[in-house]
Amino acid sequence: MEKMVGQIADMEKDFAQWYTDVVVKSKLVAYSGTRGCVYFHPYGTSVWEKIREVLDAEFKKTGHQNVMLPMLIPESMFMREKEHIEGFAPEVAFVTHFGTEKLSERLIVRPTSEVLFCDYFKQEVQSYRDLPKLLNQWANIVRCEKTTRPFLRTLEFYWQEGHTLHETEKEAREETLRMLEIYKKFAHDYLALPVISGRKTEREKFAGAVETYTIEAMMHDGKALQSGTSHYLGTNFAKSFDIKFLGRDGKLTNPHQTSWGVSTRLMGAIVMTHGDNNGLVLPPNIAPIQAVIIPIAAHKGGVIEKADELAKGLSNIRTLVDKSDNSPGWKFAEYEMRGVPIRIEIGPKDIEAGTCVVVRRDTREKITMKISDVNNKKMIELFNKINEDMYQKALKRRESMTYEAKTADEVIKIFETKLGFVIAPHSEEIETKLKEHAITSRCKLDDGRVIWGKAY
Amino acid sequence: MEKMVGQIADMEKDFAQWYTDVVVKSKLVAYSGTRGCVYFHPYGTSVWEKIREVLDAEFKKTGHQNVMLPMLIPESMFMREKEHIEGFAPEVAFVTHFGTEKLSERLIVRPTSEVLFCDYFKQEVQSYRDLPKLLNQWANIVRCEKTTRPFLRTLEFYWQEGHTLHETEKEAREETLRMLEIYKKFAHDYLALPVISGRKTEREKFAGAVETYTIEAMMHDGKALQSGTSHYLGTNFAKSFDIKFLGRDGKLTNPHQTSWGVSTRLMGAIVMTHGDNNGLVLPPNIAPIQAVIIPIAAHKGGVIEKADELAKGLSNIRTLVDKSDNSPGWKFAEYEMRGVPIRIEIGPKDIEAGTCVVVRRDTREKITMKISDVNNKKMIELFNKINEDMYQKALKRRESMTYEAKTADEVIKIFETKLGFVIAPHSEEIETKLKEHAITSRCKLDDGRVIWGKAY
Repeated sequence: MEKMVGQIADMEKDFAQWYTDVVVKSKLVAYSGTRGCVYFHPYGTSVWEKIREVLDAEFKKTGHQNVMLPMLIPESMFMREKEHIEGFAPEVAFVTHFGTEKLSERLIVRPTSEVLFCDYFKQEVQSYRDLPKLLNQWANIVRCEKTTRPFLRTLEFYWQEGHTLHETEKEAREETLRMLEIYKKFAHDYLALPVISGRKTEREKFAGAVETYTIEAMMHDGKALQSGTSHYLGTNFAKSFDIKFLGRDGKLTNPHQTSWGVSTRLMGAIVMTHGDNNGLVLPPNIAPIQAVIIPIAAHKGGVIEKADELAKGLSNIRTLVDKSDNSPGWKFAEYEMRGVPIRIEIGPKDIEAGTCVVVRRDTREKITMKISDVNNKKMIELFNKINEDMYQKALKRRESMTYEAKTADEVIKIFETKLGFVIAPHSEEIETKLKEHAITSRCKLDDGRVIWGKAY
Repeated sequence: MEKMVGQIADMEKDFAQWYTDVVVKSKLVAYSGTRGCVYFHPYGTSVWEKIREVLDAEFKKTGHQNVMLPMLIPESMFMREKEHIEGFAPEVAFVTHFGTEKLSERLIVRPTSEVLFCDYFKQEVQSYRDLPKLLNQWANIVRCEKTTRPFLRTLEFYWQEGHTLHETEKEAREETLRMLEIYKKFAHDYLALPVISGRKTEREKFAGAVETYTIEAMMHDGKALQSGTSHYLGTNFAKSFDIKFLGRDGKLTNPHQTSWGVSTRLMGAIVMTHGDNNGLVLPPNIAPIQAVIIPIAAHKGGVIEKADELAKGLSNIRTLVDKSDNSPGWKFAEYEMRGVPIRIEIGPKDIEAGTCVVVRRDTREKITMKISDVNNKKMIELFNKINEDMYQKALKRRESMTYEAKTADEVIKIFETKLGFVIAPHSEEIETKLKEHAITSRCKLDDGRVIWGKAY
């Protein structure tokens, strides 16, 4: 007996419930026995592994190398950069005991790793010949959060954190922007995610940074999601950790530093940007299953064979043939829920006609294709088209939900009736006032104005 | 000015110091600001990433999928399997505070993840149709250790942990042995590491397991290193966590469970099995740099070009051309220290003769080769030969340091003058007696005897 594909809330009526339903019923994650943490199912893990694989190759192409630094940081080391500790202190987890033994110094579970990278850099850098240092690590991070939501805000999350050291401010600033661009391009090419990139205001920047850049995405409900950040740290940390190098001029100088990261939060962005009332919609380039082939009237001679033949022709594509005895209708619903980018239906009548039916998950459009056209090349073309269509759809939506305002009061008024981005002037005073209404500056625009939004 | 390639201790005189020197000077790891933890340099990280890549593919080939479960475990959940908690309690790290707030329940930083997998399985498994569950995760682990040593015993380490659930004892036991064989074959094919596989005695088995299997390697100094384990857990955990499935007979039954893991400890095994007084010797299949090309008299016309040409012909091999202005002699010492499997020397005289000099790191043998023979196919053949030679050398060494004894006293006597493996009878009483001399049972042999050793 087949289980029902789960019901999910209507996204227009209860977006929060819809989100929870989708992340669980699409089998990305399950709720865990540890408060504020989730279990990543194989399906969710696979999405993250794809993201990791692509970004890791990008980082290596741009000269970065991976390292692995400890997860536990002695409290005294963490205290050395003043702004940094002030920013993170309320949300760090402290290890105080090993077994029954109380530690003489508490250990902090990393909420980010700037201080350990500084300690490492200090050992590694003596002269300008040792620069730049271009490092990255894939790691788990712990930050205490009062209210948690899968992917968006969890006690533990997974990310990559790049940490680099440079001879000059110019080089470090270039690196900061280079990585921001890599994130932006990745968001487009692999996640079909339109993002706005720009600087954060003083108030919103990373604790210890000179400048924070961000990529901001708008979710289906109009709320903002900070989807990645890249920081120019100046010499703040280098000074606190006494990192110096012998310059070309024979003088000891503090190097300039950057850090940048994206996390499993991107998976929340995928869900809330592309999902619909039938469930998840995965961008084809990071989907664990890119095409599912569903035999119709599978008991009839030749159907299963033809389904296998189709799969064989799609050797470069992550393809699944579902031969289970669940009904075709159940399978349609199931793989729609799981966001598989295309499904291919093949039955006796199709075989007779030499065709099959290809159904796009994003538009639910049905395309009758010649069986001979179901090949790697054609499918990859289709995936690229789907990715671009998903991107454009999200972009149009964002544009239709972006407003302009001239004063703080106008901004507040807009948010009284709707969600979205509001472009309006910025001042410290405006920012303070809007913050009282949970409206935050998302990023600065070139003309000095700011994008305001309510954020996840 | 070139820095000197560091001096290292003589391995026959002070093996412990030699080990420390090698892991640091070969740039695998650096000592960290967190007690008992190390920084993995890019070089060390890359070795681990290679190990991970190969094993991950093996696990997937045998039907396993990756998941990601939380790092923090509520204390009450950890307490549910009695033997398990007794085994691990002394060495677990407790998180007690978030910021200034004291937690109502302490969290344990995972020393292993059986209990979380059980909690996950409980949600996922209802019927025999849901079995087997074949899962794995790549994770960081924390266990408090009094004395630490890079790779062998650190506060935090990296590993994979497989966790599986099966309908029957037979299937679970088969899985336990299947994974042990995968480890053994991997140790041979990729690490050139001879291991003895077998069961652990009651005293040495994993806390909570019915049966523990191990692969044991002998290090250069004759000490034993447990290099991987595979456990048949029976229904112990399933009962404690109330995991049941509806069987084919319509009855609710506890499934049978396994877990298995290898860790960054394998990197210690590589160092201590193959290293020599010139430093690290890496098995070619996991070496981050497999071949280094060193131009001789690089300032002479055509040398650099020829070096680049050689590298271009080795497109399937991880090759580095060192064009730095350090002297050839310095470079020879440096890449020997770092364990690069082969170096290729090319200078004006070689070019004239149409040859180059290939030097094996393991034997330091110099081979004059035609330049036209320096291609992917020939080099891969050479790497396979090197791997097998390294394996055989280690195997011979182990055999020459394996002794037999009939009584506990004889075993003790042997260990008074030397290190190695001693094959001798086993009983609870013998084991207790030998343990007083820090001699432990490494694994059981088919004939009922046991291999005794002093272990890392």
